[in-house]
Amino acid sequence: MLKRRQFLKMSSAAITGSLLAFPATASTASLFKEKRYRILALVFDDYETLDLHGPIEMLGHMPDVEIKLVGPTEFVKSYQGPRVVTDTLMDRHYDCDLLLIPGGLGTRKLVDDKQLIHWLTIQLTRSKKIFSICTGSALLAKTSSLDGIKATTNKMAYQWVTSLADEVHWQPKARWVDDGKFLTSSGVSAGTDAALYWAKQLHGEVEARRIETLTEYRWVDDSNSDPYAIFTE
Amino acid sequence: MLKRRQFLKMSSAAITGSLLAFPATASTASLFKEKRYRILALVFDDYETLDLHGPIEMLGHMPDVEIKLVGPTEFVKSYQGPRVVTDTLMDRHYDCDLLLIPGGLGTRKLVDDKQLIHWLTIQLTRSKKIFSICTGSALLAKTSSLDGIKATTNKMAYQWVTSLADEVHWQPKARWVDDGKFLTSSGVSAGTDAALYWAKQLHGEVEARRIETLTEYRWVDDSNSDPYAIFTE
Repeated sequence: MLKRRQFLKMSSAAITGSLLAFPATASTASLFKEKRYRILALVFDDYETLDLHGPIEMLGHMPDVEIKLVGPTEFVKSYQGPRVVTDTLMDRHYDCDLLLIPGGLGTRKLVDDKQLIHWLTIQLTRSKKIFSICTGSALLAKTSSLDGIKATTNKMAYQWVTSLADEVHWQPKARWVDDGKFLTSSGVSAGTDAALYWAKQLHGEVEARRIETLTEYRWVDDSNSDPYAIFTE
Repeated sequence: MLKRRQFLKMSSAAITGSLLAFPATASTASLFKEKRYRILALVFDDYETLDLHGPIEMLGHMPDVEIKLVGPTEFVKSYQGPRVVTDTLMDRHYDCDLLLIPGGLGTRKLVDDKQLIHWLTIQLTRSKKIFSICTGSALLAKTSSLDGIKATTNKMAYQWVTSLADEVHWQPKARWVDDGKFLTSSGVSAGTDAALYWAKQLHGEVEARRIETLTEYRWVDDSNSDPYAIFTE
Protein backbone atom coordinates (compact mmCIF):
# COMPACT_ATOMS: atom_id res chain seq x y z
CA MET A 1 0.00 0.00 0.00
CA LEU A 2 2.76 2.39 1.01
CA LYS A 3 4.56 1.77 -2.28
CA ARG A 4 1.41 2.49 -4.21
CA ARG A 5 0.84 5.68 -2.23
CA GLN A 6 4.41 6.81 -2.79
CA PHE A 7 4.00 6.11 -6.48
CA LEU A 8 0.78 8.09 -6.56
CA LYS A 9 2.43 10.98 -4.75
CA MET A 10 5.28 10.94 -7.26
CA SER A 11 3.01 10.65 -10.26
CA SER A 12 0.75 13.33 -8.84
CA ALA A 13 3.74 15.61 -8.28
CA ALA A 14 5.04 14.86 -11.76
CA ILE A 15 1.66 15.63 -13.26
CA THR A 16 1.03 18.81 -11.29
CA GLY A 17 4.57 19.79 -12.18
CA SER A 18 3.46 19.86 -15.80
CA LEU A 19 0.18 21.67 -15.13
CA LEU A 20 1.22 24.78 -17.04
CA ALA A 21 1.22 22.67 -20.17
CA PHE A 22 -1.92 20.74 -19.24
CA PRO A 23 -5.01 21.69 -21.25
CA ALA A 24 -8.21 22.16 -19.21
CA THR A 25 -10.28 19.93 -21.45
CA ALA A 26 -10.68 16.75 -19.43
CA SER A 27 -14.08 15.07 -19.63
CA THR A 28 -16.07 14.69 -16.41
CA ALA A 29 -18.08 11.75 -17.74
CA SER A 30 -16.05 9.32 -15.68
CA LEU A 31 -16.33 11.35 -12.48
CA PHE A 32 -20.00 12.43 -12.23
CA LYS A 33 -23.20 10.67 -13.25
CA GLU A 34 -25.56 12.33 -15.71
CA LYS A 35 -28.06 14.96 -14.56
CA ARG A 36 -26.67 15.37 -11.06
CA TYR A 37 -25.78 18.52 -9.17
CA ARG A 38 -22.02 18.06 -9.33
CA ILE A 39 -20.08 19.03 -6.20
CA LEU A 40 -16.30 18.77 -6.37
CA ALA A 41 -14.49 19.19 -3.05
CA LEU A 42 -10.78 19.94 -2.81
CA VAL A 43 -8.93 18.09 -0.06
CA PHE A 44 -5.32 18.35 1.11
CA ASP A 45 -3.28 17.18 4.10
CA ASP A 46 -4.22 19.02 7.32
CA TYR A 47 -7.57 20.19 5.99
CA GLU A 48 -9.96 20.99 8.87
CA THR A 49 -12.44 18.12 9.30
CA LEU A 50 -15.67 20.08 9.84
CA ASP A 51 -14.85 22.61 7.08
CA LEU A 52 -15.37 19.77 4.62
CA HIS A 53 -17.83 17.40 6.27
CA GLY A 54 -20.27 19.98 7.66
CA PRO A 55 -21.16 21.28 4.18
CA ILE A 56 -21.05 17.73 2.74
CA GLU A 57 -23.60 16.66 5.36
CA MET A 58 -26.08 19.40 4.43
CA LEU A 59 -25.49 19.53 0.66
CA GLY A 60 -25.47 15.73 0.52
CA HIS A 61 -29.15 15.64 1.51
CA MET A 62 -30.22 17.75 -1.49
CA PRO A 63 -31.97 15.83 -4.31
CA ASP A 64 -29.93 14.44 -7.23
CA VAL A 65 -26.59 15.55 -5.82
CA GLU A 66 -23.21 13.88 -6.26
CA ILE A 67 -20.13 14.74 -4.22
CA LYS A 68 -16.58 13.85 -5.30
CA LEU A 69 -13.24 14.57 -3.65
CA VAL A 70 -10.19 15.76 -5.58
CA GLY A 71 -6.72 16.00 -4.07
CA PRO A 72 -2.96 15.63 -4.70
CA THR A 73 -2.80 12.01 -3.52
CA GLU A 74 -5.05 8.96 -3.19
CA PHE A 75 -5.34 9.33 0.59
CA VAL A 76 -5.54 12.70 2.32
CA LYS A 77 -5.15 13.16 6.09
CA SER A 78 -7.25 15.63 8.04
CA TYR A 79 -5.75 17.81 10.78
CA GLN A 80 -7.66 15.65 13.29
CA GLY A 81 -6.08 12.47 11.93
CA PRO A 82 -8.64 10.41 9.99
CA ARG A 83 -8.09 10.08 6.25
CA VAL A 84 -10.38 10.39 3.25
CA VAL A 85 -10.05 8.72 -0.15
CA THR A 86 -9.92 11.05 -3.15
CA ASP A 87 -12.13 10.12 -6.13
CA THR A 88 -9.68 11.71 -8.54
CA LEU A 89 -6.24 13.32 -8.50
CA MET A 90 -5.33 16.88 -9.46
CA ASP A 91 -4.00 15.84 -12.85
CA ARG A 92 -6.91 17.46 -14.70
CA HIS A 93 -9.87 19.78 -14.26
CA TYR A 94 -13.60 19.09 -14.10
CA ASP A 95 -16.84 20.84 -15.00
CA CYS A 96 -18.82 21.11 -11.78
CA ASP A 97 -21.75 23.04 -10.33
CA LEU A 98 -20.11 23.74 -7.00
CA LEU A 99 -16.44 23.73 -6.06
CA LEU A 100 -15.96 23.29 -2.33
CA ILE A 101 -12.73 24.58 -0.78
CA PRO A 102 -12.21 23.83 2.92
CA GLY A 103 -9.60 25.50 5.08
CA GLY A 104 -7.33 24.29 7.83
CA LEU A 105 -3.68 24.38 8.87
CA GLY A 106 -2.73 22.90 5.48
CA THR A 107 -3.59 26.17 3.73
CA ARG A 108 -0.64 27.90 5.44
CA LYS A 109 1.74 25.98 3.17
CA LEU A 110 -0.54 25.74 0.14
CA VAL A 111 -0.83 29.49 -0.38
CA ASP A 112 2.79 29.26 -1.59
CA ASP A 113 2.24 26.13 -3.71
CA LYS A 114 2.37 27.51 -7.27
CA GLN A 115 1.15 24.23 -8.79
CA LEU A 116 -1.88 24.07 -6.48
CA ILE A 117 -2.76 27.72 -7.07
CA HIS A 118 -2.38 27.20 -10.83
CA TRP A 119 -4.62 24.11 -10.78
CA LEU A 120 -7.17 26.05 -8.73
CA THR A 121 -7.06 29.05 -11.07
CA ILE A 122 -8.04 26.84 -14.01
CA GLN A 123 -10.56 24.81 -11.98
CA LEU A 124 -12.37 28.04 -11.04
CA THR A 125 -13.16 28.57 -14.73
CA ARG A 126 -14.78 25.11 -14.85
CA SER A 127 -16.92 25.67 -11.71
CA LYS A 128 -20.31 27.41 -11.82
CA LYS A 129 -20.13 28.42 -8.15
CA ILE A 130 -17.25 28.41 -5.68
CA PHE A 131 -17.82 27.86 -1.96
CA SER A 132 -14.91 28.35 0.44
CA ILE A 133 -15.00 27.58 4.14
CA CYS A 134 -12.71 29.09 6.78
CA THR A 135 -9.17 29.69 5.45
CA GLY A 136 -10.09 28.05 2.14
CA SER A 137 -10.57 31.69 1.13
CA ALA A 138 -6.79 32.14 1.51
CA LEU A 139 -6.28 29.81 -1.48
CA LEU A 140 -8.90 31.72 -3.47
CA ALA A 141 -7.25 35.01 -2.54
CA LYS A 142 -3.95 33.78 -3.97
CA THR A 143 -5.59 33.16 -7.36
CA SER A 144 -6.60 36.87 -7.43
CA SER A 145 -10.12 35.69 -8.28
CA LEU A 146 -11.56 37.45 -5.21
CA ASP A 147 -10.19 40.88 -6.22
CA GLY A 148 -13.07 43.36 -6.17
CA ILE A 149 -15.35 40.75 -4.52
CA LYS A 150 -16.96 40.88 -1.08
CA ALA A 151 -15.65 37.90 0.92
CA THR A 152 -15.05 36.68 4.44
CA THR A 153 -12.91 34.09 6.21
CA ASN A 154 -12.04 32.54 9.57
CA LYS A 155 -12.03 35.36 12.13
CA MET A 156 -9.28 33.67 14.16
CA ALA A 157 -7.02 33.89 11.09
CA TYR A 158 -8.47 37.15 9.74
CA GLN A 159 -5.25 39.19 9.78
CA TRP A 160 -3.26 36.52 7.95
CA VAL A 161 -5.85 35.77 5.26
CA THR A 162 -6.70 39.41 4.54
CA SER A 163 -2.97 40.21 4.25
CA LEU A 164 -2.75 37.91 1.23
CA ALA A 165 -4.89 40.06 -1.09
CA ASP A 166 -5.45 43.81 -0.72
CA GLU A 167 -8.04 44.09 -3.50
CA VAL A 168 -10.60 41.81 -1.85
CA HIS A 169 -13.48 43.56 -0.05
CA TRP A 170 -12.97 41.55 3.15
CA GLN A 171 -15.98 41.53 5.49
CA PRO A 172 -14.98 41.55 9.20
CA LYS A 173 -18.54 40.74 10.34
CA ALA A 174 -20.35 38.00 8.42
CA ARG A 175 -21.22 34.34 9.02
CA TRP A 176 -20.93 34.03 5.24
CA VAL A 177 -20.86 36.26 2.16
CA ASP A 178 -22.43 35.47 -1.23
CA ASP A 179 -21.08 37.75 -3.96
CA GLY A 180 -21.52 36.71 -7.58
CA LYS A 181 -19.69 33.47 -8.27
CA PHE A 182 -18.22 33.23 -4.77
CA LEU A 183 -19.77 32.06 -1.52
CA THR A 184 -17.21 32.47 1.28
CA SER A 185 -17.91 31.46 4.87
CA SER A 186 -16.35 32.32 8.19
CA GLY A 187 -14.52 29.74 10.33
CA VAL A 188 -15.16 26.00 10.40
CA SER A 189 -18.77 25.54 11.56
CA ALA A 190 -19.92 28.67 9.69
CA GLY A 191 -19.55 26.56 6.55
CA THR A 192 -22.37 24.29 7.69
CA ASP A 193 -24.69 27.30 8.02
CA ALA A 194 -23.59 28.64 4.63
CA ALA A 195 -24.24 25.22 3.08
CA LEU A 196 -27.87 25.31 4.26
CA TYR A 197 -28.11 28.84 2.85
CA TRP A 198 -26.94 27.47 -0.50
CA ALA A 199 -29.45 24.58 -0.32
CA LYS A 200 -32.12 27.26 0.22
CA GLN A 201 -30.91 29.23 -2.82
CA LEU A 202 -31.10 26.10 -4.99
CA HIS A 203 -34.25 24.41 -3.64
CA GLY A 204 -36.07 26.94 -1.46
CA GLU A 205 -36.52 27.38 2.29
CA VAL A 206 -38.82 24.36 2.75
CA GLU A 207 -36.07 22.03 1.51
CA ALA A 208 -33.40 23.78 3.60
CA ARG A 209 -35.60 23.43 6.71
CA ARG A 210 -36.24 19.76 5.85
CA ILE A 211 -32.48 19.14 5.90
CA GLU A 212 -32.06 21.18 9.10
CA THR A 213 -34.71 19.01 10.79
CA LEU A 214 -33.36 15.75 9.36
CA THR A 215 -29.96 16.53 10.89
CA GLU A 216 -31.45 17.96 14.13
CA TYR A 217 -29.36 21.02 13.41
CA ARG A 218 -29.73 24.58 14.71
CA TRP A 219 -29.16 26.60 11.59
CA VAL A 220 -27.71 30.08 12.04
CA ASP A 221 -29.74 31.31 9.04
CA ASP A 222 -28.72 34.97 9.24
CA SER A 223 -25.43 35.73 7.48
CA ASN A 224 -25.11 38.92 9.56
CA SER A 225 -25.16 36.97 12.83
CA ASP A 226 -21.46 36.64 13.64
CA PRO A 227 -20.38 36.41 17.28
CA TYR A 228 -16.78 36.09 16.11
CA ALA A 229 -16.81 39.33 14.12
CA ILE A 230 -13.63 41.39 13.93
CA PHE A 231 -14.10 44.99 15.06
CA THR A 232 -11.55 47.01 13.17
CA GLU A 233 -12.69 50.41 14.46
CA MET B 1 -6.93 -1.49 -6.15
CA LEU B 2 -10.29 -3.15 -6.64
CA LYS B 3 -8.68 -6.56 -6.30
CA ARG B 4 -7.04 -5.50 -3.06
CA ARG B 5 -10.31 -4.15 -1.75
CA GLN B 6 -12.18 -7.29 -2.71
CA PHE B 7 -9.50 -9.32 -0.97
CA LEU B 8 -9.79 -7.17 2.15
CA LYS B 9 -13.56 -7.51 2.12
CA MET B 10 -13.23 -11.27 1.85
CA SER B 11 -10.55 -11.54 4.51
CA SER B 12 -12.50 -9.18 6.76
CA ALA B 13 -15.64 -11.25 6.30
CA ALA B 14 -13.71 -14.45 6.91
CA ILE B 15 -12.16 -13.04 10.06
CA THR B 16 -15.34 -11.55 11.52
CA GLY B 17 -16.98 -14.87 10.70
CA SER B 18 -14.60 -16.46 13.18
CA LEU B 19 -14.99 -13.78 15.84
CA LEU B 20 -16.59 -16.18 18.29
CA ALA B 21 -13.29 -18.00 18.45
CA PHE B 22 -11.17 -14.83 18.41
CA PRO B 23 -9.61 -13.91 21.77
CA ALA B 24 -9.98 -10.24 22.76
CA THR B 25 -6.32 -9.86 23.64
CA ALA B 26 -4.93 -7.88 20.71
CA SER B 27 -2.29 -5.28 21.59
CA THR B 28 -3.05 -1.65 20.78
CA ALA B 29 0.62 -0.69 20.60
CA SER B 30 0.51 -0.71 16.84
CA LEU B 31 -2.66 1.39 16.66
CA PHE B 32 -2.20 4.17 19.24
CA LYS B 33 0.88 6.08 20.35
CA GLU B 34 1.89 6.06 24.02
CA LYS B 35 0.22 8.40 26.52
CA ARG B 36 -2.55 9.61 24.23
CA TYR B 37 -6.28 9.87 24.82
CA ARG B 38 -7.25 7.00 22.54
CA ILE B 39 -10.42 7.49 20.49
CA LEU B 40 -11.56 4.58 18.35
CA ALA B 41 -14.37 5.36 15.91
CA LEU B 42 -16.47 2.66 14.25
CA VAL B 43 -17.28 3.28 10.58
CA PHE B 44 -19.47 1.34 8.17
CA ASP B 45 -21.01 1.90 4.74
CA ASP B 46 -23.81 4.50 4.79
CA TYR B 47 -22.69 6.01 8.09
CA GLU B 48 -23.95 9.62 8.43
CA THR B 49 -21.13 12.06 7.68
CA LEU B 50 -21.66 14.61 10.46
CA ASP B 51 -22.35 11.93 13.10
CA LEU B 52 -18.69 10.98 12.78
CA HIS B 53 -16.90 14.17 11.74
CA GLY B 54 -18.66 16.64 14.04
CA PRO B 55 -17.39 14.87 17.19
CA ILE B 56 -13.99 14.22 15.54
CA GLU B 57 -13.67 17.96 14.88
CA MET B 58 -14.28 18.92 18.51
CA LEU B 59 -12.53 15.99 20.24
CA GLY B 60 -9.62 16.27 17.81
CA HIS B 61 -8.71 19.68 19.25
CA MET B 62 -8.24 18.30 22.77
CA PRO B 63 -4.62 17.95 23.94
CA ASP B 64 -2.74 14.67 23.42
CA VAL B 65 -5.58 12.97 21.59
CA GLU B 66 -5.35 10.34 18.87
CA ILE B 67 -8.29 9.27 16.69
CA LYS B 68 -8.36 6.01 14.71
CA LEU B 69 -11.06 4.53 12.50
CA VAL B 70 -12.05 0.85 12.61
CA GLY B 71 -14.35 -0.77 10.08
CA PRO B 72 -15.17 -3.93 8.12
CA THR B 73 -13.17 -2.92 5.03
CA GLU B 74 -10.21 -0.70 4.10
CA PHE B 75 -12.47 1.96 2.54
CA VAL B 76 -15.86 2.90 3.95
CA LYS B 77 -18.40 5.02 2.08
CA SER B 78 -20.53 7.61 3.85
CA TYR B 79 -24.22 8.06 3.04
CA GLN B 80 -23.26 11.36 1.36
CA GLY B 81 -20.73 9.64 -0.89
CA PRO B 82 -17.17 10.49 0.17
CA ARG B 83 -15.08 7.66 1.59
CA VAL B 84 -12.80 7.36 4.61
CA VAL B 85 -9.82 5.05 5.10
CA THR B 86 -9.97 2.74 8.11
CA ASP B 87 -6.82 2.54 10.25
CA THR B 88 -7.59 -1.05 11.20
CA LEU B 89 -10.11 -3.75 10.36
CA MET B 90 -12.58 -5.45 12.69
CA ASP B 91 -10.43 -8.55 13.04
CA ARG B 92 -9.56 -7.75 16.65
CA HIS B 93 -10.38 -5.49 19.58
CA TYR B 94 -8.56 -2.54 21.09
CA ASP B 95 -8.17 -0.89 24.47
CA CYS B 96 -9.39 2.67 24.05
CA ASP B 97 -10.52 5.60 26.19
CA LEU B 98 -13.49 6.49 24.01
CA LEU B 99 -15.39 4.36 21.51
CA LEU B 100 -17.28 6.51 19.03
CA ILE B 101 -20.31 4.97 17.31
CA PRO B 102 -21.97 7.10 14.60
CA GLY B 103 -25.39 6.39 13.15
CA GLY B 104 -26.84 6.62 9.69
CA LEU B 105 -28.84 4.57 7.22
CA GLY B 106 -26.24 1.78 7.48
CA THR B 107 -27.39 0.94 11.00
CA ARG B 108 -30.76 -0.34 9.63
CA LYS B 109 -28.94 -3.40 8.24
CA LEU B 110 -26.25 -3.65 10.91
CA VAL B 111 -28.67 -4.18 13.81
CA ASP B 112 -29.20 -7.65 12.28
CA ASP B 113 -25.48 -8.30 11.62
CA LYS B 114 -24.62 -10.87 14.30
CA GLN B 115 -20.87 -10.62 13.58
CA LEU B 116 -20.86 -6.82 13.97
CA ILE B 117 -22.94 -6.95 17.15
CA HIS B 118 -20.64 -9.66 18.54
CA TRP B 119 -17.52 -7.61 17.71
CA LEU B 120 -19.12 -4.57 19.33
CA THR B 121 -20.14 -6.49 22.45
CA ILE B 122 -16.52 -7.47 23.06
CA GLN B 123 -15.15 -4.03 22.07
CA LEU B 124 -17.39 -2.38 24.69
CA THR B 125 -15.48 -4.28 27.38
CA ARG B 126 -12.22 -2.78 26.05
CA SER B 127 -13.54 0.80 25.97
CA LYS B 128 -13.51 3.09 29.04
CA LYS B 129 -16.35 5.25 27.69
CA ILE B 130 -18.79 4.72 24.83
CA PHE B 131 -20.20 7.65 22.86
CA SER B 132 -22.98 6.99 20.34
CA ILE B 133 -24.39 9.57 17.97
CA CYS B 134 -27.82 9.44 16.34
CA THR B 135 -28.88 5.85 15.48
CA GLY B 136 -25.49 4.55 16.63
CA SER B 137 -27.48 3.84 19.79
CA ALA B 138 -29.43 1.22 17.83
CA LEU B 139 -26.25 -0.86 17.57
CA LEU B 140 -25.60 -0.42 21.29
CA ALA B 141 -29.19 -1.39 22.07
CA LYS B 142 -28.72 -4.66 20.18
CA THR B 143 -25.78 -5.59 22.43
CA SER B 144 -28.14 -5.29 25.46
CA SER B 145 -25.47 -3.08 27.06
CA LEU B 146 -27.93 -0.18 27.41
CA ASP B 147 -30.44 -2.24 29.43
CA GLY B 148 -31.25 -0.31 32.61
CA ILE B 149 -29.34 2.74 31.29
CA LYS B 150 -30.71 6.20 30.46
CA ALA B 151 -30.08 6.85 26.76
CA THR B 152 -31.33 8.85 23.81
CA THR B 153 -31.17 8.68 20.02
CA ASN B 154 -32.19 10.41 16.79
CA LYS B 155 -35.71 11.77 17.31
CA MET B 156 -36.59 11.24 13.63
CA ALA B 157 -35.91 7.50 14.14
CA TYR B 158 -37.05 7.36 17.76
CA GLN B 159 -39.82 4.78 17.32
CA TRP B 160 -37.56 2.36 15.43
CA VAL B 161 -34.56 2.61 17.76
CA THR B 162 -36.57 2.38 20.97
CA SER B 163 -38.41 -0.69 19.62
CA LEU B 164 -35.11 -2.58 19.54
CA ALA B 165 -34.64 -2.73 23.32
CA ASP B 166 -37.42 -2.49 25.92
CA GLU B 167 -35.12 -2.41 28.95
CA VAL B 168 -33.38 0.84 28.01
CA HIS B 169 -34.59 3.99 29.79
CA TRP B 170 -35.04 5.92 26.54
CA GLN B 171 -35.20 9.70 26.96
CA PRO B 172 -37.60 11.40 24.49
CA LYS B 173 -36.30 14.88 25.33
CA ALA B 174 -32.52 15.28 25.52
CA ARG B 175 -29.79 16.71 23.29
CA TRP B 176 -27.59 14.05 24.88
CA VAL B 177 -27.60 11.73 27.91
CA ASP B 178 -24.55 10.76 30.01
CA ASP B 179 -25.24 7.71 32.18
CA GLY B 180 -22.32 5.79 33.61
CA LYS B 181 -20.22 4.32 30.84
CA PHE B 182 -22.51 5.53 28.06
CA LEU B 183 -22.84 8.96 26.46
CA THR B 184 -25.64 8.84 23.88
CA SER B 185 -26.61 11.81 21.74
CA SER B 186 -29.65 12.75 19.72
CA GLY B 187 -29.58 13.05 15.92
CA VAL B 188 -26.59 13.96 13.77
CA SER B 189 -25.54 17.47 14.85
CA ALA B 190 -26.39 16.78 18.51
CA GLY B 191 -23.24 14.67 18.54
CA THR B 192 -21.11 17.77 18.01
CA ASP B 193 -22.67 19.40 21.09
CA ALA B 194 -22.22 16.20 23.13
CA ALA B 195 -18.56 16.02 22.04
CA LEU B 196 -17.93 19.51 23.46
CA TYR B 197 -19.70 18.39 26.65
CA TRP B 198 -17.27 15.46 26.86
CA ALA B 199 -14.26 17.75 26.23
CA LYS B 200 -15.57 19.82 29.17
CA GLN B 201 -15.83 16.72 31.39
CA LEU B 202 -12.24 15.78 30.55
CA HIS B 203 -10.54 19.19 30.47
CA GLY B 204 -12.92 21.73 32.00
CA GLU B 205 -15.14 24.46 30.59
CA VAL B 206 -12.28 26.81 29.63
CA GLU B 207 -10.88 24.17 27.25
CA ALA B 208 -14.34 23.38 25.84
CA ARG B 209 -14.97 27.10 25.19
CA ARG B 210 -11.52 27.39 23.57
CA ILE B 211 -12.48 24.68 21.09
CA GLU B 212 -15.92 26.25 20.55
CA THR B 213 -14.24 29.58 19.70
CA LEU B 214 -11.52 27.97 17.57
CA THR B 215 -14.21 26.35 15.43
CA GLU B 216 -16.51 29.43 15.48
CA TYR B 217 -19.20 27.07 16.71
CA ARG B 218 -22.41 27.82 18.58
CA TRP B 219 -22.43 25.13 21.21
CA VAL B 220 -25.83 24.00 22.48
CA ASP B 221 -24.33 23.41 25.95
CA ASP B 222 -27.57 22.39 27.70
CA SER B 223 -28.39 18.69 27.33
CA ASN B 224 -32.04 19.49 28.15
CA SER B 225 -32.36 21.85 25.21
CA ASP B 226 -33.95 19.67 22.54
CA PRO B 227 -36.18 21.29 19.90
CA TYR B 228 -36.68 17.85 18.33
CA ALA B 229 -37.96 16.22 21.50
CA ILE B 230 -40.59 13.50 21.22
CA PHE B 231 -43.72 14.19 23.24
CA THR B 232 -45.14 10.80 24.14
CA GLU B 233 -47.98 12.12 26.30
